[in-house]
Amino acid sequence: MKALVYGGPGKKSWEEKPKPTLQHPADAIVRISRTTICGTDLHILKGDVPEVTPGRILGHEGVGIVEETGAQVGNFEKGDHVLISCITSCAQCEYCKKGMYSHCLNGGWILGHLIDGTQAEYVRIPYADNSLYRIPEGMDEEALVMLSDILPTGFECGVLNGQIKPGDTVAIIGAGPVGLAALLTAQFFTPAEIIMIDLDANRLEVSKKFGATQTINSSSEKVVEKIMQLTGNKGVDTAIEAVGVPATFELCQSIIAPGGRIANIGVHGKSVELHLETLWSRNVTITTRLVDTVTTPMLLRTVASKKLNPSLLITHRFQLPEIVRAYEVFAQAGKEKTLKVILINE
Amino acid sequence: MKALVYGGPGKKSWEEKPKPTLQHPADAIVRISRTTICGTDLHILKGDVPEVTPGRILGHEGVGIVEETGAQVGNFEKGDHVLISCITSCAQCEYCKKGMYSHCLNGGWILGHLIDGTQAEYVRIPYADNSLYRIPEGMDEEALVMLSDILPTGFECGVLNGQIKPGDTVAIIGAGPVGLAALLTAQFFTPAEIIMIDLDANRLEVSKKFGATQTINSSSEKVVEKIMQLTGNKGVDTAIEAVGVPATFELCQSIIAPGGRIANIGVHGKSVELHLETLWSRNVTITTRLVDTVTTPMLLRTVASKKLNPSLLITHRFQLPEIVRAYEVFAQAGKEKTLKVILINE
Amino acid sequence: MKALVYGGPGKKSWEEKPKPTLQHPADAIVRISRTTICGTDLHILKGDVPEVTPGRILGHEGVGIVEETGAQVGNFEKGDHVLISCITSCAQCEYCKKGMYSHCLNGGWILGHLIDGTQAEYVRIPYADNSLYRIPEGMDEEALVMLSDILPTGFECGVLNGQIKPGDTVAIIGAGPVGLAALLTAQFFTPAEIIMIDLDANRLEVSKKFGATQTINSSSEKVVEKIMQLTGNKGVDTAIEAVGVPATFELCQSIIAPGGRIANIGVHGKSVELHLETLWSRNVTITTRLVDTVTTPMLLRTVASKKLNPSLLITHRFQLPEIVRAYEVFAQAGKEKTLKVILINE
Amino acid sequence: MKALVYGGPGKKSWEEKPKPTLQHPADAIVRISRTTICGTDLHILKGDVPEVTPGRILGHEGVGIVEETGAQVGNFEKGDHVLISCITSCAQCEYCKKGMYSHCLNGGWILGHLIDGTQAEYVRIPYADNSLYRIPEGMDEEALVMLSDILPTGFECGVLNGQIKPGDTVAIIGAGPVGLAALLTAQFFTPAEIIMIDLDANRLEVSKKFGATQTINSSSEKVVEKIMQLTGNKGVDTAIEAVGVPATFELCQSIIAPGGRIANIGVHGKSVELHLETLWSRNVTITTRLVDTVTTPMLLRTVASKKLNPSLLITHRFQLPEIVRAYEVFAQAGKEKTLKVILINE
Repeated sequence: MKALVYGGPGKKSWEEKPKPTLQHPADAIVRISRTTICGTDLHILKGDVPEVTPGRILGHEGVGIVEETGAQVGNFEKGDHVLISCITSCAQCEYCKKGMYSHCLNGGWILGHLIDGTQAEYVRIPYADNSLYRIPEGMDEEALVMLSDILPTGFECGVLNGQIKPGDTVAIIGAGPVGLAALLTAQFFTPAEIIMIDLDANRLEVSKKFGATQTINSSSEKVVEKIMQLTGNKGVDTAIEAVGVPATFELCQSIIAPGGRIANIGVHGKSVELHLETLWSRNVTITTRLVDTVTTPMLLRTVASKKLNPSLLITHRFQLPEIVRAYEVFAQAGKEKTLKVILINE
Repeated sequence: MKALVYGGPGKKSWEEKPKPTLQHPADAIVRISRTTICGTDLHILKGDVPEVTPGRILGHEGVGIVEETGAQVGNFEKGDHVLISCITSCAQCEYCKKGMYSHCLNGGWILGHLIDGTQAEYVRIPYADNSLYRIPEGMDEEALVMLSDILPTGFECGVLNGQIKPGDTVAIIGAGPVGLAALLTAQFFTPAEIIMIDLDANRLEVSKKFGATQTINSSSEKVVEKIMQLTGNKGVDTAIEAVGVPATFELCQSIIAPGGRIANIGVHGKSVELHLETLWSRNVTITTRLVDTVTTPMLLRTVASKKLNPSLLITHRFQLPEIVRAYEVFAQAGKEKTLKVILINE
Repeated sequence: MKALVYGGPGKKSWEEKPKPTLQHPADAIVRISRTTICGTDLHILKGDVPEVTPGRILGHEGVGIVEETGAQVGNFEKGDHVLISCITSCAQCEYCKKGMYSHCLNGGWILGHLIDGTQAEYVRIPYADNSLYRIPEGMDEEALVMLSDILPTGFECGVLNGQIKPGDTVAIIGAGPVGLAALLTAQFFTPAEIIMIDLDANRLEVSKKFGATQTINSSSEKVVEKIMQLTGNKGVDTAIEAVGVPATFELCQSIIAPGGRIANIGVHGKSVELHLETLWSRNVTITTRLVDTVTTPMLLRTVASKKLNPSLLITHRFQLPEIVRAYEVFAQAGKEKTLKVILINE
Repeated sequence: MKALVYGGPGKKSWEEKPKPTLQHPADAIVRISRTTICGTDLHILKGDVPEVTPGRILGHEGVGIVEETGAQVGNFEKGDHVLISCITSCAQCEYCKKGMYSHCLNGGWILGHLIDGTQAEYVRIPYADNSLYRIPEGMDEEALVMLSDILPTGFECGVLNGQIKPGDTVAIIGAGPVGLAALLTAQFFTPAEIIMIDLDANRLEVSKKFGATQTINSSSEKVVEKIMQLTGNKGVDTAIEAVGVPATFELCQSIIAPGGRIANIGVHGKSVELHLETLWSRNVTITTRLVDTVTTPMLLRTVASKKLNPSLLITHRFQLPEIVRAYEVFAQAGKEKTLKVILINE
């Protein structure tokens, strides 16, 4: 089969690889029908994720059709249409039993990381019974690719950890795909205001269409001043960090109201300064989380009932063999106005 | 009357001051029967709390007898024995309605800070109906001085925010009075292990008597290594910071298990480094809190039913006029083996 | 002034009464600008609420303008536009401190019940600081009459107690004003399905406009069968009882899924049969609640931000002196297609 | 092998049965070392549980040593010492993922009910990876038999559902093994008072030794009056029903404080009267639950750390072949002062 293969920092190619085979009785082989590219894949290509070794097939998102199942797989059979979770989970270790699939002792984030991923014609999914989700008939399968990673990430790490309640004021820093996923799912809890902050005018425009009540362009506006003005000098109840650099985490600390929650989603490469000299007495909560994808069934129900439209996040489509070109379009998100690209394996 | 008066950095004196009078119909005047000294008072004396101006009577803890009440006070009358909360709260502002008395728009921590405090023969208590608690007959009133501040502080900021559950492993960094208050009240939720960490051998000895299952002397032992060994390399479920310096907050980050909670109690004077480069994916929660004293009625019930013995924290007793000497003993806690000193106003 | 006065079972009249005066320093006198009639008022008129004695002015809902305040009132002054809560609360008793204003030892539901109410030109409001809410400038004051009672009742007793989550399936039994208030506020939490059940075709039609995804007319359809069919034989996650008779509570028990919640709102006059012989093993939660109105500030924010439109519930308007006629229209809700009637005091 | 076999209502015998064999790759065969008898077994013998058919081996509690494992079993191997949960759970169905193992679509309570049970020399355990728990070295294995059913039942259905908090007042109706299990585990949350109610003077005596602060003999004392007197006429915060008859559930309704929780544990054979005519406005929560045994790891940690001593519940010991005699002693609990009997398979 063909696959997108990492060749070391800065190198990738669309090349022939052996079709995956069952290695454990809990495995399934899935024929990919749609996949996508994640910001994390760009990090890997920069060499920022050293556990990924040359030869690895990238990708941890997608939908497809079950091709073959191991002897232990009970929930799926050949021909089933499935959503692939970016998190592999055994369901039975101590972390899985607590709902912390991200820390599964036998899985976690391994696809396109420690084992071959989904940017290929076929993929092997370990612990298939708990790592795949059946797609109900009649759903828009392409849209569900957004449920592999970014929608549960925005929802679990941002919205749930941020404890958003009806009437709250929320700020989301970063209007990339994950920040926008947080914006879409924050509305499940009916906050009064959602303030979206980014440097990119187009993404702020998109944010408004997606439900932001206010936008602030941090390249030209004084963010803290404007938020204090919008909130009667109180600050926001929840600040969601969806960028992953010190400056944006710093910003969260400057705009959080007493009693508020800072929910970090961003993947950080450096430590940040935490201003305990002021925050110690402000009754704030700061959370971090690698997505567990425990809310995937809940999200599937909200999509099925038309409360959430994940296809809003898709801006470009390519045939799977065009994936190298798709990476370029995804990497130049500002110029190309890219959110998520869909790769189609006919 | 006589009172302990702040005279600017490094200066205090036991001197004559006018007896307080009602200034607002919600005020009560309380005759102090027992008060104490807090670590915060030492900070004030160093000049670290610039809002405290020379001439201020210090102290924010104590029990006493109501002497006079304003026209609006409905819950108390002359002669009632009362516990004074370190937090003054109006009960009716937006923060009080959420249970965040610490941020009361009309109160908060003001005693011995922005208004005259309890290290005196009499004190004026604003919003008396909500800032005093009736002492049930037959209780050890002296012991209840520990409920003015340190027990709710250890309980709310450390134990409740740390979400301690039966069977959990807890580390408490700092075995001073507040850390010990956290140790005593952590046991309300029956954790399997409570590991106490301090530099002072005597305080670790006391910790064992108070229920610590393990102690680590951070002056001589490798704390992180020992905790990893005690926890099968997982780290602790809850780490409570009860010191207030960067090194101890750093330690919390090194010993916290995936999914764990870091509950800060310490009063920090500087920012700290937050290691988001590792913590971003570890599903941790970090909390800060100025005590709200909303759990005072609950704590009173646990004392009344003998589930909590606050008098364990009292090591020294002085007559109130000896308060300058008491400050010395309190300041030299290591040498004098001081936890809390009681000042008696006969 | 003029007021609607209860004259014993079956009797009411619009008659002259003395204008209320301050009786306690925490009181305020409010000039009513809009009030309404509640189903409870009809119960009182039937003689079902014996604590209400002849001579009592009815009514516990309304908005108005502060006319006079007692010496203790700090949050309001003459001229302020205010929302009147149906629950009077002192903010300082043990129940108020827990947020259970309904059980306030000094208040609770007393307006139009134990003291004179709001169906009058003026009303006296005890504990005004905590029982009135300032109306932000520019809001539709008439619509806010719905926040005195029915919206917090539907939200607190039905939606919050029913623990509705995104993706859930909810059934609401009873599409009267309170059931519809539950329907409107249930959508704050984005359930996948809201099934509305009633005998009245018009109210089911209204329910669809208000967001119900399914309606069942219990006069002509087999409710349990239809719900089992709609839910794949599982039953609903939350069943909200908004009628108050044994048959509807019985229905809730028949349609609840394992792990589900039955949230009772209805005012019951008789005991009901609880089928513990089947429910004991089904992990269900049943709740009851008299509205506390603790969520009024949250609801005000959702109205201000256009997430909730309370005016949808208003079907008829009368001048206040026409109140006897308004009672007729309200009592004949089926024929008149009445939801809530507004009474205007020009 | 030998086993205790149900022969239809009123009939049981210790007889020869084939040793169980693996039937599914997720099965394990366990050699029983200790088992016990449950009140439910007595119900089965009366013919009250018609799903149990003649020929069935009874018993759903026990500890043992793994004898053989199917190909899918990953967590255990021959020779492991294990605790058998009374609930079989697949870990991967929709209910298991929510932590509702009791409603596992592939398991639930099946041992000694729908499949052969533990009162035998060997037992087959389906879904062994999730239905067995490894016994840490050095623990008292016999005591852990109490963790198969009664301790998680008392804890989950009574204590957790009853939301017991420090300082609360709790009543437990029924001082049989499960009520006593609730009494022991209620103390994990440090309530101020635990009032134990039963007809049997010996069991009340035992309750005092186990930590009850008050006991009431309902055969000779006026329970409601005494509780109202003990609680200042408020009633209890949590009432735990551990009997399963209408009269005791009725009692819970009479003694519950406003805002309180009634947690049902009892297995009810009939419906009960629910007094919504008074409870509708009292903000109470009523819960039911079949034990999920999701807290077994937590309970194991509390036992390992000496916070819970399950062996307190064991009053009699027999060799396994004496099981028919053991049933007699267990059935005559009043006369024999029996709590739990241990059956030893040497």
